Amino acid sequence: MNASILNIGDELLIGQVVNTNASWMAQQLTECGIRVREVLTIADERQAITEGLERCLKNADTLLITGGLGPTKDDITKHTLCAYFHAKLVEHAESLRNIERIFARRGYPMTETNRQQAMVPDCCEVIVNEVGTAPCMWFEKDGKTVVSLPGVPSEMKHLMQNQVLPRLKARNGGLCIVQKNLIFQGIGESFLSDAIAPWEEKLPSHISLAYLPQHGMLRLRLTASGSNEAALQKALADESRYLYEHVGKYLVGEDMDSLQAIAADCLVRHGKTLCTAESCTGGSLAARMTAMPGASRYYLGGMVAYSNEWKEKALHVSHDTLSRFGAVSEETVREMAVHAREVLGSDYAVATTGIAGPDGGTAEKPVGTVWIGVASANETLTRLLHCSDLRAQVIERTCNQVFSDLIQLIRKECGK
Amino acid sequence: MNASILNIGDELLIGQVVNTNASWMAQQLTECGIRVREVLTIADERQAITEGLERCLKNADTLLITGGLGPTKDDITKHTLCAYFHAKLVEHAESLRNIERIFARRGYPMTETNRQQAMVPDCCEVIVNEVGTAPCMWFEKDGKTVVSLPGVPSEMKHLMQNQVLPRLKARNGGLCIVQKNLIFQGIGESFLSDAIAPWEEKLPSHISLAYLPQHGMLRLRLTASGSNEAALQKALADESRYLYEHVGKYLVGEDMDSLQAIAADCLVRHGKTLCTAESCTGGSLAARMTAMPGASRYYLGGMVAYSNEWKEKALHVSHDTLSRFGAVSEETVREMAVHAREVLGSDYAVATTGIAGPDGGTAEKPVGTVWIGVASANETLTRLLHCSDLRAQVIERTCNQVFSDLIQLIRKECGK
Repeated sequence: MNASILNIGDELLIGQVVNTNASWMAQQLTECGIRVREVLTIADERQAITEGLERCLKNADTLLITGGLGPTKDDITKHTLCAYFHAKLVEHAESLRNIERIFARRGYPMTETNRQQAMVPDCCEVIVNEVGTAPCMWFEKDGKTVVSLPGVPSEMKHLMQNQVLPRLKARNGGLCIVQKNLIFQGIGESFLSDAIAPWEEKLPSHISLAYLPQHGMLRLRLTASGSNEAALQKALADESRYLYEHVGKYLVGEDMDSLQAIAADCLVRHGKTLCTAESCTGGSLAARMTAMPGASRYYLGGMVAYSNEWKEKALHVSHDTLSRFGAVSEETVREMAVHAREVLGSDYAVATTGIAGPDGGTAEKPVGTVWIGVASANETLTRLLHCSDLRAQVIERTCNQVFSDLIQLIRKECGK
Repeated sequence: MNASILNIGDELLIGQVVNTNASWMAQQLTECGIRVREVLTIADERQAITEGLERCLKNADTLLITGGLGPTKDDITKHTLCAYFHAKLVEHAESLRNIERIFARRGYPMTETNRQQAMVPDCCEVIVNEVGTAPCMWFEKDGKTVVSLPGVPSEMKHLMQNQVLPRLKARNGGLCIVQKNLIFQGIGESFLSDAIAPWEEKLPSHISLAYLPQHGMLRLRLTASGSNEAALQKALADESRYLYEHVGKYLVGEDMDSLQAIAADCLVRHGKTLCTAESCTGGSLAARMTAMPGASRYYLGGMVAYSNEWKEKALHVSHDTLSRFGAVSEETVREMAVHAREVLGSDYAVATTGIAGPDGGTAEKPVGTVWIGVASANETLTRLLHCSDLRAQVIERTCNQVFSDLIQLIRKECGK
């Protein structure tokens, strides 16, 4: 079974928006054992959409479309699909109720234009979009499937995860694909690749390996395909045993997609709590922690101490430390972590201070210089990082290293 | 003049890599007045590449290709182009010297495989890639242009900026494209669309309009194309005057891409400072503020008060308020904002408290219930939001509303 992705939207063709929908969808489809043939991005234009439909369906069984389902004049996907399938628009009662519900909740008045969003081609199956006003439409014709989804990422993802992917997966029949993600930290891609080369060369043909480096961490993805899910799972577990034995000290966790998810899991399993004291990461540690449901079980709160005054006042970093060693120093980050833990009364505290750039660098402490600290009741770890000079990369790499160090300290003190 | 983009690479089709090359290239082409017709992403496969070439060239004058130019066996773009143009491979002396130079600098030995990268189809013009080993190849045939670029973003960008874009721009003659972005808040897409319909219908044909909704904000993009840049800019300024006159109260700003950028601009221009006191947004307000370079000029710091204890201790929310009205209440958010401003000593403070979900909702306060507060020395605004029940949406919509309310308050007190 294979699929193509058709993303509709002028904003994609002028480069205003990066097409993250396509990569997310491609990843999900791949994990369901569905091969992605191509991704086509086109404008909100009737002719382009019709041509795109024809082209994509020539090479794929299934076509997933995003975008152009809004209520305004420039959104013409629905009308074009209606013409393509020689259908006429009819009102879908359940979608209308859904739209009314959403407007009532938001407290906005509903217009005739909004009501139009409940009109759908009479030849499609409608999947109600619980988190937005544009319904998802499922078409079948000549043995091919066309699914039209809203382009808003959260709505598209919700519909994909709860409706579209389960249906496609069921249809994909016997073939199953099992993946195992292993998260490494503290080892470069080529070093890891050299270290596991003998094992990689002997991997059976139904298991493939991908290196997925991110800033400051590296994910290895093992993918096995076949008909027996249990056997595939066992094969992946057997193969990963080699990695635990040979490069286990760099292996932070598996089957979670981020270091903060592993850290959260460690905290929950050992009944521990965390607080954050951030300077250069500016709230990103807190935001990453609290983006996960259930964060209040282990995350008490934190401080973003951007100014020196606030580092002194809220985190009790001594004035002497700040003036002798500077805000970006081991001494400062140590005091931030230790005092944050005391002030907030958590089991663990993490702290960051650094120069995220583009300004503020000196010869001695260039942009990208970051100190991080992790404190427990028993000890405080500190670490110096030399990141790139790109602000977003400094923040991301620092966050990854903080969560990794936190995981190590919890495991050291509480066990795996 | 128009162009299409063909990105070649298996990693793009399994979602391992987000196609940022496409959006960057599309943006650059658009700024040169070249309309991007479509972006097609395909696998490293001979047939897919040949088909992709044919398809893209049918609709566009110029085709920019990235990827598949590496030295390894899975890189087949060059061979496929060679066959497509009925050419044969010849050694390009200058490219060979470039490859030798790069290997000498890196201190690596050069292999026969590397030498092969200097072989190019004899029908193309070669543009030496100073920052990498794969040369850029420029083909002309039947009035169409095909440019093959490496997929490594830094190499592709270097070649585009220094060689490809200047050539395309020169060829495109006088045509230029001018854009204007207008950010609205507090008005739904369809409501705005209805309100400005008479104006939209009368827009001249060389000006196009796009609605780009995000959670809690809406961007309108006006695009004008023509030969006289000053005239286009004036035309867009004239057209946007209508919007200021008729829906101006929802218009938060223009020519910036986010509400926090507008808020930061307001703070800087009026010499004011900000702090944040977050519960349900969990650090996202702080992270968004500090993601922008120069944040330390106006952002002092903040608190993430996830637990009630911390709301009491750090933000001095009274125990009585919390027990009488609950953490998610107007009274609590008001105290959070007022006290954060006092504690951190900033001119403005923003605060959030709500139920981001998926758990924690009640019949009276369902998931998505959020109170926000914005405090200055003179007054404190509060607002109740009813968001969706998706955690990420709750956080994003809340942040957008907070920045919007902050902008309104600063403008009210300090002027535009």
